Amino acid sequence: MIDVCLLGTGGMMPLPYRYLTSLMIRYNGTNILVDCGEGTQITAKRLGWSYKAIDLILITHFHADHISGLPGFLLMMGNADRREDVTIVGPEGLERIVRSLLVIAPRLPFKVNCVEIKENEADVSMLGLKITAFKLDHNLTCYGYCFELGRAGRFNPDAAKSLGLPVRTWNILQHGGTVEHEGKIYTSDMVMGEDRKGLKLTYCTDSRPTPSIVSHAKNSDLFICEGMYGEEDGEEKAKEKKHMTMYEAAQLAKEAEVKEMWLTHFSPSLNKPAEYADKVKEIFPDAVIPKDRYVKVLNFEDEDE
Amino acid sequence: MIDVCLLGTGGMMPLPYRYLTSLMIRYNGTNILVDCGEGTQITAKRLGWSYKAIDLILITHFHADHISGLPGFLLMMGNADRREDVTIVGPEGLERIVRSLLVIAPRLPFKVNCVEIKENEADVSMLGLKITAFKLDHNLTCYGYCFELGRAGRFNPDAAKSLGLPVRTWNILQHGGTVEHEGKIYTSDMVMGEDRKGLKLTYCTDSRPTPSIVSHAKNSDLFICEGMYGEEDGEEKAKEKKHMTMYEAAQLAKEAEVKEMWLTHFSPSLNKPAEYADKVKEIFPDAVIPKDRYVKVLNFEDEDE
Repeated sequence: MIDVCLLGTGGMMPLPYRYLTSLMIRYNGTNILVDCGEGTQITAKRLGWSYKAIDLILITHFHADHISGLPGFLLMMGNADRREDVTIVGPEGLERIVRSLLVIAPRLPFKVNCVEIKENEADVSMLGLKITAFKLDHNLTCYGYCFELGRAGRFNPDAAKSLGLPVRTWNILQHGGTVEHEGKIYTSDMVMGEDRKGLKLTYCTDSRPTPSIVSHAKNSDLFICEGMYGEEDGEEKAKEKKHMTMYEAAQLAKEAEVKEMWLTHFSPSLNKPAEYADKVKEIFPDAVIPKDRYVKVLNFEDEDE
Repeated sequence: MIDVCLLGTGGMMPLPYRYLTSLMIRYNGTNILVDCGEGTQITAKRLGWSYKAIDLILITHFHADHISGLPGFLLMMGNADRREDVTIVGPEGLERIVRSLLVIAPRLPFKVNCVEIKENEADVSMLGLKITAFKLDHNLTCYGYCFELGRAGRFNPDAAKSLGLPVRTWNILQHGGTVEHEGKIYTSDMVMGEDRKGLKLTYCTDSRPTPSIVSHAKNSDLFICEGMYGEEDGEEKAKEKKHMTMYEAAQLAKEAEVKEMWLTHFSPSLNKPAEYADKVKEIFPDAVIPKDRYVKVLNFEDEDE
């Protein structure tokens, strides 16, 4: 299972009632932050998940509303007694940008390692999650991120018994290991069923719609996508500023056949983004226009069984 | 008259219910901002005074909680269509720090001019206000700021009449000008009374108490001072971290014979700073332990007459 929280839903500038878009993911004792605009540390405090446990920070691009909160956030982690290295992943130039911003946080009590993405697509898997970065279409180099959590097949105890394997070896095989028993080698696939459906989360802001978003978001359990404008003349503004309307995002969700879509990165000019929900749902019914700190637990298909 | 608003009252890190310490001053159509930590733009939006009209930003020192909000604030001013130059004044090294932070705001639609203070005390008067920077005692070079607004004496119409000066010349003389009438030169002081008491505002954070604070704050109408700790063992922490307790600040206010003192820069560990008010007022009765966006209009003594 993966816990997902959209810490903020705003674009461009933080508002008194709407923080800048960023995502927090909690999985298996580790936390991941995606983007860190001004004020992200405040909304993260409100949420109450451990920010000390953030091992990985992914940056989509270097516009201020996606990274200006970084020095404050790292200082807060330091004050919370974080001592282990933190990895930051982002577009080419990341190291220079991060070091510039850290001019006001010169003595963090942990090491910051920067990983720069240079290709159109990159595997940045970490912490037991398959993480894929893919280039978006914005007016500055910008990446979307896919998070995939695999799930092994079911263990077949009858198969293990018929092979004559003692119970003490089962656990090793269940976790993908190899066992030697009475001179023979037994591998995991001999006692495990087919891999089951895992979980997939796709995060995409800021961008115009692209075929690459559809292919990367394909079959996601949750697709979080910018929908900066909802109003009549939104598409014109979106094209000019290399953003997306809510309806364009809904169309991507439909084509990618995702389970659920959340919109985010709302223009400061939108007082009530939710007023466009009906029109969005005409295109993609499983759409949510959330407020800050909207939370969902992504469970495996039959996890509650 | 001068409008004063303490935009935030927190120290170290912004909290969901308390922004970082910064001050906004509104005077004669111009605005001044003192310090700009993360989130200052949000509390400034809540206040609703024009941030587009901010001509001068004073920075006390380069700890993140006093400057991390600068790129976002300047971008917000740009989005509000600010086109005129903005002056930023702060300690030596300001230019390097500001340019580093602006790596994520590379194309502001106005020019930013940095003025570095290198002495223990400096006259940085601007915009019709006498502004004095004076060095504090912190673990990083840090300045307090005094703002003084002078007030001319009363105009004496009888004096003007007895000199035979026509009414059309009075306005010039009232505003400090010189007039030639029937071959003679008349100066302002010939028709104006003694200068009257003006207004004085002193802002002081972060620091240990010093005699220089007392002498600079002397007779201020309003003295805004850090009071980071109020609890039992506060003085020990204050000494270690080069901060001040509320009681030390109150003692300075008493010695400086100020009219009113506001405390600020409260430690994140203080949930309710106001609970120490009684103890503070035992030392200095005209003390206020304000919340964010506390506002006061400083009027000349008889301005309401």
